[in-house]
Amino acid sequence: MGATGLTIGVFDSGFGGLTVLRELLPLVAGSHCVYLGDTARLPYGSKSRETIVRYALSSARFLQRQGAQLLVVACNTATALALEDLRAALPIPVVGVIQPGVEAAVTACREVGTAGEVLVLATQATVESHAYARACATLALKATEKACPLLVPLVEEGWICEGTLDEETPGEDGGASDAARAFVTAQVLRIYLGEALRDAPESRALLLGCTHYPLLRTEIERTLAELGRPLRVIDSAQATARAVERVLSEQGMARGDRADVGDATCEFFATDSVQKFERLGPRFLGRPVGKVQLVDLGG
Amino acid sequence: MGATGLTIGVFDSGFGGLTVLRELLPLVAGSHCVYLGDTARLPYGSKSRETIVRYALSSARFLQRQGAQLLVVACNTATALALEDLRAALPIPVVGVIQPGVEAAVTACREVGTAGEVLVLATQATVESHAYARACATLALKATEKACPLLVPLVEEGWICEGTLDEETPGEDGGASDAARAFVTAQVLRIYLGEALRDAPESRALLLGCTHYPLLRTEIERTLAELGRPLRVIDSAQATARAVERVLSEQGMARGDRADVGDATCEFFATDSVQKFERLGPRFLGRPVGKVQLVDLGG
Repeated sequence: MGATGLTIGVFDSGFGGLTVLRELLPLVAGSHCVYLGDTARLPYGSKSRETIVRYALSSARFLQRQGAQLLVVACNTATALALEDLRAALPIPVVGVIQPGVEAAVTACREVGTAGEVLVLATQATVESHAYARACATLALKATEKACPLLVPLVEEGWICEGTLDEETPGEDGGASDAARAFVTAQVLRIYLGEALRDAPESRALLLGCTHYPLLRTEIERTLAELGRPLRVIDSAQATARAVERVLSEQGMARGDRADVGDATCEFFATDSVQKFERLGPRFLGRPVGKVQLVDLGG
Repeated sequence: MGATGLTIGVFDSGFGGLTVLRELLPLVAGSHCVYLGDTARLPYGSKSRETIVRYALSSARFLQRQGAQLLVVACNTATALALEDLRAALPIPVVGVIQPGVEAAVTACREVGTAGEVLVLATQATVESHAYARACATLALKATEKACPLLVPLVEEGWICEGTLDEETPGEDGGASDAARAFVTAQVLRIYLGEALRDAPESRALLLGCTHYPLLRTEIERTLAELGRPLRVIDSAQATARAVERVLSEQGMARGDRADVGDATCEFFATDSVQKFERLGPRFLGRPVGKVQLVDLGG
């Protein structure tokens, strides 16, 4: 438990939700954050609604046993299919990743002065659920959803270059430099974004509908500029973190003054593949994750 | 049941094992092949040995109930972790994908006149299991295993060009042509193979240790030639199909004369994601898969 006495639970099927926690930590100083990656049962995307609800409930109850007073569902599939069941079953506030991102997209489209249309990049499973299109429709925002199956493995491989990218074709030596790897990612983004913008030429904003994608934000913005379509990029992780801050304030659970309470503390759990979590987690969280504890939530 | 009265069961965690069935069909004319993709529970690679054995046994028993008299484990993870348990539990012959590929690699290395060394391309999970290195070691063959996490999604996206590839950098229009997509795959292969051949300069053969990879064989051979290292490429699927033919002959279950018995017939089952199976299956099987039947094997 942190200095403010507040414990926040964050749950994802894997470690991608760490990008949400990364945005959340500066907003919840003094609190204690408990993260659970249900890595034994991922991917959620190919499972039935009934199964995902069952997995999400057992994950949520584990976090409640760890003292969570608010639950962040930092997983697009679980948000799409289990958010209402979680809210019905749990006595604590539950915040998902879809609605905050969609609301931020509506605001962004209004700012450019049109009703507009948003382009949502997501995994195949999220696109097939049409969760973003439905959430956008309730706010009268037209959405085009684009599945980008190569982006998660590219992020997990770390084929990302945050610095200046030399866009020359790699040489004959196998090209195994960081620049050669980042070149592949740039080409993949150019193909996906080129296809998507041809299908949705009226897009005014681009919503990152997968917790892995914030790690590609710089490359995505660069590619949009190269394609002559510098759309505003909306990061669901940032929008979700601000939504959590708002809920805490509304519920009278807001943090104390940051100067008094110190940084938020973190604890990490996973249901499998602890080594992969420890290896890739820091890239998503932007700081060390330390020891990840293995838990068994059953089948 | 086919004209020879022989029923063969083929099992994989997904539809990748269809590349094994593709090689098998011409060798088992007149027989009936029942394929099961345990798509509800994939990926096997991140699960514990105990869990994989349980999944493999329930899949195998389903195929036995369909009349299978021989079982092909067309899944690297299940072969690595559950083959011995399957052989102990089932009264029918069981053929896995690892040993046949490794034996073919030994033969290929001998043919180039050295004890040699084999380079194995596989998924992260297969590499971490070191199943290929262990199987090679028992035959005194040194193996270097290279994880290639981007290749499965590239195959599933269909970013493959079987024809002549124009290797120019794609244009500014988004580059969403088949050539632009195939260019990405070529670059990824150049990076992976470049890295692997630097780490294993003595390699004499390259073993495709994932059931998805035969679809990249042409690109892999082209890349090896470009890198000045035209290694012999061994396809586990082909080697496994020939191993099945050998076992059938040894067990007195061999096919009749092809002219009399007609083509093998097929039936397909999956535990989830039937649409994805029907959409991508033909690319792996090299012919239509028709209707895929959904089965529930429990948790």
